Amino acid sequence: MKKIEEIGENAKSVSYFLSQVSSTAKNFALLVAAKNLRKSSVQILDANKQDVANAKENGLKGSILDRLMLSSERINDMASGLENISNLEDPIGEIVSMNTRPNGLQIGQRRVPLGVVGIIYEARPNVTSDVFGLCIKTGNACILRGGKEAFLSNMAIVTILRRSLIEAGLPEDSVQLVEDTTRESAMALMKLNKYLDILIPRGGAGLIKTVVENSTVPVIETGVGNCHIYIDSSADPNKAINITYNAKTHRPGVCNAAESLLIHSSVAKVLLPLIGKKLREKNVEIRGDKITCEILDYAVIATEEDWGTEYLDYIISVKVVNSISEAITHINKYGTNHSESIVTEDYSNAQQFLNQVDAAAVYVNASTRFTDGFEFGFGAEIGISTQKLHARGPMGLKALTSTKYIIYGDGQIRQ
Amino acid sequence: MKKIEEIGENAKSVSYFLSQVSSTAKNFALLVAAKNLRKSSVQILDANKQDVANAKENGLKGSILDRLMLSSERINDMASGLENISNLEDPIGEIVSMNTRPNGLQIGQRRVPLGVVGIIYEARPNVTSDVFGLCIKTGNACILRGGKEAFLSNMAIVTILRRSLIEAGLPEDSVQLVEDTTRESAMALMKLNKYLDILIPRGGAGLIKTVVENSTVPVIETGVGNCHIYIDSSADPNKAINITYNAKTHRPGVCNAAESLLIHSSVAKVLLPLIGKKLREKNVEIRGDKITCEILDYAVIATEEDWGTEYLDYIISVKVVNSISEAITHINKYGTNHSESIVTEDYSNAQQFLNQVDAAAVYVNASTRFTDGFEFGFGAEIGISTQKLHARGPMGLKALTSTKYIIYGDGQIRQ
Repeated sequence: MKKIEEIGENAKSVSYFLSQVSSTAKNFALLVAAKNLRKSSVQILDANKQDVANAKENGLKGSILDRLMLSSERINDMASGLENISNLEDPIGEIVSMNTRPNGLQIGQRRVPLGVVGIIYEARPNVTSDVFGLCIKTGNACILRGGKEAFLSNMAIVTILRRSLIEAGLPEDSVQLVEDTTRESAMALMKLNKYLDILIPRGGAGLIKTVVENSTVPVIETGVGNCHIYIDSSADPNKAINITYNAKTHRPGVCNAAESLLIHSSVAKVLLPLIGKKLREKNVEIRGDKITCEILDYAVIATEEDWGTEYLDYIISVKVVNSISEAITHINKYGTNHSESIVTEDYSNAQQFLNQVDAAAVYVNASTRFTDGFEFGFGAEIGISTQKLHARGPMGLKALTSTKYIIYGDGQIRQ
Repeated sequence: MKKIEEIGENAKSVSYFLSQVSSTAKNFALLVAAKNLRKSSVQILDANKQDVANAKENGLKGSILDRLMLSSERINDMASGLENISNLEDPIGEIVSMNTRPNGLQIGQRRVPLGVVGIIYEARPNVTSDVFGLCIKTGNACILRGGKEAFLSNMAIVTILRRSLIEAGLPEDSVQLVEDTTRESAMALMKLNKYLDILIPRGGAGLIKTVVENSTVPVIETGVGNCHIYIDSSADPNKAINITYNAKTHRPGVCNAAESLLIHSSVAKVLLPLIGKKLREKNVEIRGDKITCEILDYAVIATEEDWGTEYLDYIISVKVVNSISEAITHINKYGTNHSESIVTEDYSNAQQFLNQVDAAAVYVNASTRFTDGFEFGFGAEIGISTQKLHARGPMGLKALTSTKYIIYGDGQIRQ
């Protein structure tokens, strides 16, 4: 079993080479990997079956088990993902800007890979090939530290990916799986500043918090979404009902699902019963403030904790507010700067909400479920950043790049 | 004395307001502050005299004392700095991109302030007004944690800045000085994730290391520069001599000064004596590898440690290499990803160096001393980033901004 330090050194050394590889060669490697994943799906499914059996033995169930489980279809999706990435434009080498200074220096800013990307993730084996695809495309070496539940699946996938790299003439250490799945290996990765340029945690709030608190490597915080729908006094009732229903129930386990509904007092009495009725089609539990509970007798009273909770479940907190400003203040206080939406027909209120809500994605009259790299048209997604540095919101290929200044001189010295 | 937590809460609360302030109002505040700094220069100088006296008593001397000391001219420069910033274009509100998706959603990316910016710095009181200017211009609240040596100077300056904010109709807590200058207050700032969006250390390598290792707030690593000049076999001798001399001796105490010279073996015997002679005009100590010491009898032998050292002094390490690839490998191993320059007349070697050297700024035939926000034409500088996330190289106003996605819908829900 390789030590983290050695894995880091390998990745760094490979990254210099990878940064210089042509788009053609990178795309070819992605297509080879896609072909090999499809060809070896039986092998991957066997390993996955063993992971799933072990997980069941250890008492795992529900959505974690669902995320862990692979099928022929899911493997095919992984392969298609790589093919899609190969079709995207390569951001590397783009000259972002170039100017000639009064002293004749030509100063340009060129897009380059980050170098070495580390990912700590949980039980989703498809992340393994997704991250591989995004990193190869952007000329980054990657170090994958997946959860122990998916270890055999990840090993099977990475073995195929590494074989594919060799087949395509690229160094196999462009992707490395950390075989040590103990807490210690994750901690070591978080301190690997010497070799790692970025660390991205992908998983639940607990994992993300641990990484943010312990990593000395620059981190991109992803994913936690306590998203709100605010229904303004001028809201179109149908939009209000449909957007709330969609944002809450379309896929409640994901970060861009709505967790909280704010509604203006002037429309609460009319709209809340209609919205509540619709939500009950999916047995959504409603935790409301006092007025909400007066309007909806089936609502239970919300605690202070509810306003800050990402349920990831068929539960929604509901609060009646007296103004758009009260809604915005509530969102900026309890939200996680992910996705927030106003339903309104009032122009000024729409603009005020867009201006004053502090979040990665702020919507007017649309479901928060659209915060997603594919829905935004990036063609790929490495995660959704809820921090303000480097990248904010859905992160596509560009989030895996940096820039460097290239300066053409003719003997200039500083006066 | 206010607690860090309270300072953070104030800053966050003010930041929502500041993010909405017009360019006109922000520029006015900068001009008022410039006027008041000039008007109160006696007051600032008095405080500074006391700081300097205390520092001398505590045995401080040399460049630290020089950085601490203010003069009428320096205060005037601080004021002019604010006036210059007021003349720059305001990056806030720029729509970076906007597209309509097939489902009709209009998705735009708008430039917004980061929110709350924290700075930990050492004994340079002019950083106080510089950071104030950059943050007000970009709509950010700032928390300043200066060194204890400059405490009275910083207090005097911040008092004037806060009075100016009130005079201009902006909240005085837009800038706050941490009055507690103990190590504890710096550590508390590094853990203030709840309120701080970014932390920028400005100072020596020790300070930067401490912040990178301890901060859970996202950090931008600035400044450490082990910069190289590589003289290629095809170098123009005059450019080689002048660029090396300028990069080493123009201002040796700053991060973009050269610390190490690499020279191709085919020209070492001819050029090293000429370069050495020129450097000795400024009594530069030369620490060379074996061949260098054979060519220059006044050079002393370099240790392994020398290759990785940022001297910030009239000392340079010199190594003879047999190829451009050896030079690039050496730079990528020992450099700090700051500024690197090749002197060459060979087209392909110039391109290879620009492509393969991993640094914020890579030069052909120019002094590394140009890595600077003003020299790059940004009109301002908050520091020089040596990391790859968020900003790389000299950071102007844009480095103090983030973006948010604004989405105009018409009832769209996710299918």
